[in-house]
Amino acid sequence: MSSVLVVGSTAFDSIETPFGSRELCLGGSATYFSLAARLFTSVELVSVVGDDFPDEHRQLLRSCGVDLQGLETKPGKTFSWSGRYSADMNSRETLDVQLNTFGDFRPAVPAAYRDSAFVFLANGAPSTQASVLDQMGGTTFSVADTMNLWIDCARDDLLGLLERIDGLIVNDEEVKMLTGESNLIRAGRKVLDLGPKLVIVKKGEHGSFLFSNYFQYALPAYPTDVVVDPTGAGDSFAGGFMGFVAECDSLSLWNMKRAMAYGTVCASLTVEGFGVDAIAAANRERLERRYQDLIQFVSL
Amino acid sequence: MSSVLVVGSTAFDSIETPFGSRELCLGGSATYFSLAARLFTSVELVSVVGDDFPDEHRQLLRSCGVDLQGLETKPGKTFSWSGRYSADMNSRETLDVQLNTFGDFRPAVPAAYRDSAFVFLANGAPSTQASVLDQMGGTTFSVADTMNLWIDCARDDLLGLLERIDGLIVNDEEVKMLTGESNLIRAGRKVLDLGPKLVIVKKGEHGSFLFSNYFQYALPAYPTDVVVDPTGAGDSFAGGFMGFVAECDSLSLWNMKRAMAYGTVCASLTVEGFGVDAIAAANRERLERRYQDLIQFVSL
Repeated sequence: MSSVLVVGSTAFDSIETPFGSRELCLGGSATYFSLAARLFTSVELVSVVGDDFPDEHRQLLRSCGVDLQGLETKPGKTFSWSGRYSADMNSRETLDVQLNTFGDFRPAVPAAYRDSAFVFLANGAPSTQASVLDQMGGTTFSVADTMNLWIDCARDDLLGLLERIDGLIVNDEEVKMLTGESNLIRAGRKVLDLGPKLVIVKKGEHGSFLFSNYFQYALPAYPTDVVVDPTGAGDSFAGGFMGFVAECDSLSLWNMKRAMAYGTVCASLTVEGFGVDAIAAANRERLERRYQDLIQFVSL
Repeated sequence: MSSVLVVGSTAFDSIETPFGSRELCLGGSATYFSLAARLFTSVELVSVVGDDFPDEHRQLLRSCGVDLQGLETKPGKTFSWSGRYSADMNSRETLDVQLNTFGDFRPAVPAAYRDSAFVFLANGAPSTQASVLDQMGGTTFSVADTMNLWIDCARDDLLGLLERIDGLIVNDEEVKMLTGESNLIRAGRKVLDLGPKLVIVKKGEHGSFLFSNYFQYALPAYPTDVVVDPTGAGDSFAGGFMGFVAECDSLSLWNMKRAMAYGTVCASLTVEGFGVDAIAAANRERLERRYQDLIQFVSL
């Protein structure tokens, strides 16, 4: 069993969904990732917060087994995001973003983490993501997320990063935008020519695809009948995927497929509660029960 | 092995896609259904055409093993439809519809078909669909399709039909509209309260769901990288599904899942060519090869 290192944002989220709203709850890509991955293995978090970040959030993360050595506190405010979901939860509008201390995030990987074999670079500027790889020693499996902003405005940096990472986890719109292909299957395969050996495309309620030069795999989403808040589903998916792979310490084809299923399960747990409530309350037993349900649901 | 009876439209389609356009090619729900189902078992077609319907279309259907005893020819023109697909093929605009002889279609099931155990009622007025059931003797498995028009304008007739059929095959928008549920999983389950023991929801490129009171099943679409013309994909899916079930002559859980996979394969063959070109050219060997590919693609 290996630990997994994640570099990304820790944030205050304000969320409106048809089920209600919440102000300033714990959020951020690295947070969701960590709370999913810790169900499988130990998690090393590299992120930044302001001096307004409350001790209760640190305690929550620590009590979930997330190592906070790499969580830097800087003078100023914590990154905050607020958004509103549509009635069917399939789209959202960003109402406000305050980057604050995350704006000039220069991740410093603690010495103790530099040999971590499994690294996830959550969404961020490709140059910042690359700076993490520069600090690492014996990484065997590095995976990154990205977004439309970087595909648009930092394309060269992103292409440079793609040559250095093993896997990319993005959503369907992003992979089409990155490759200029309107057919998702062609788009996914085209990313393989840009460097990564593995491309995972998240399609929200429609499940996910895995592309590699050796095999392709498709997995439906878990049939969730009550989505309370979709925030963090994608990062939880990545956390479950990477957490399971690190736990197995193996990159076999079969493990990759199972890791997709565990990612799917983590995402389904996250969306059942507001913010991190549901994923933070989950345990391995709950996770395994739902994994079995999912397998049942998709097996011929 | 049982035969399968289909009642629905035979049409002239004029189609524009980003790949090109075709005028007045053979189309219609019952046509696509038949050309898929005949890959599994003998097909009995009940439909209507005008006296402008060319012999070559009849010959094509006959050469594919479709029984045309129930294909009525009436004075006047054949039903015609013309439509244009968006650049990503995910939406289409109907440019023209001429119901012609299909407008007052009163299906008369030939005596030789009345004991058919497997019946598919392709999209049509629910009262017309019900009139087919009135003529049948020993049907063991009846499945219907419907559309937004009937959900809106003939709701009571449709609800009456749902109490009489075993299965419903619809798309995601239709099932949400029928039940007033925005969550697809809840919507699918809710249809089970209206009568059918089986509900299949088609999601196009995102695959399909099966709902029953005993199990649920989700299957991704086949990873087609060149969609030439999506017309008829849904009817081909239904044809593959019903054709396989009729061939097996069994309604076991496992057969239902395999039938979904064969439906998926038939839809994927159809979209590779304009109109019925690709599905009419398919044979069992091609079908089985693609079935194995699909199983590979979705198996853990």
